[in-house]
Amino acid sequence: MTQQASKLVIITEKLLLKQIAKIIDESGATGYTVVAAGGKGSRNVRSSGQPSISDTYSNIKIEVLTPNRDMAVKISDEVAAQFFDDYSGIAYLCNVMEVLHAHKF
Amino acid sequence: MTQQASKLVIITEKLLLKQIAKIIDESGATGYTVVAAGGKGSRNVRSSGQPSISDTYSNIKIEVLTPNRDMAVKISDEVAAQFFDDYSGIAYLCNVMEVLHAHKF
Amino acid sequence: MTQQASKLVIITEKLLLKQIAKIIDESGATGYTVVAAGGKGSRNVRSSGQPSISDTYSNIKIEVLTPNRDMAVKISDEVAAQFFDDYSGIAYLCNVMEVLHAHKF
Repeated sequence: MTQQASKLVIITEKLLLKQIAKIIDESGATGYTVVAAGGKGSRNVRSSGQPSISDTYSNIKIEVLTPNRDMAVKISDEVAAQFFDDYSGIAYLCNVMEVLHAHKF
Repeated sequence: MTQQASKLVIITEKLLLKQIAKIIDESGATGYTVVAAGGKGSRNVRSSGQPSISDTYSNIKIEVLTPNRDMAVKISDEVAAQFFDDYSGIAYLCNVMEVLHAHKF
Repeated sequence: MTQQASKLVIITEKLLLKQIAKIIDESGATGYTVVAAGGKGSRNVRSSGQPSISDTYSNIKIEVLTPNRDMAVKISDEVAAQFFDDYSGIAYLCNVMEVLHAHKF
């Protein structure tokens, strides 16, 4: 029942969701979770100009559980190559994790 | 001030929130955080048919900090036993973590 | 390309966002992400009285990637000192992480 996994987190601009979802699907990952996010980056102000938690977030935080680090890095490399020259984004990996139960995920 | 903890993450369908909150309360955990989430699972499309960050997310991501792994596993086992035959869901554990400050949590 | 980092997570009341954003900015961190959150704490019910995923969350979850543990602890100490006597809040640290790509973050 218990298995190791990696969690890839990608925070980027909302409008990229469908294209990133396609990259995730094609990688073989079985699913992902998306949350609306605001915030501020190092070189430009993300969200709507200043820190805000209004209902209109302009960023998304995507989390993908992958069975190993390689799949996570592959997704991240592809997303960065396609979008991070032109759009704000960060991708990071949480290494230690244990999947306890998964159903239809 | 610093203490070790486990973080249990449960991503599942929105309508289960109250029942899962009850399980968490009864476990002895002192609190939890809920975030609205969308996404896609392995066997069915979660959210509203396709990747979407519209304001109507149909999933929730619940995070529970527990003082040890046992409490997290107990909550996860109970949630999976009650709901994961009939609903989409995943439960995973982040092991390494340090609680720096907590007030009324 | 790959670098170690710490992730500081602060969950607290929505109205503190601007003040906490200022503390984060002054610490030298390059950015942060904010997500609307509900939930329940140990001594008071957070959110709107009972577990709810209505669109009006009264909490926020702020995540800050920092290049080292020291900067994360400094931010957390400052936030706790200024606000956690009077407001609900928790701050915790995820230790193991790898930043794969970052652009304008």
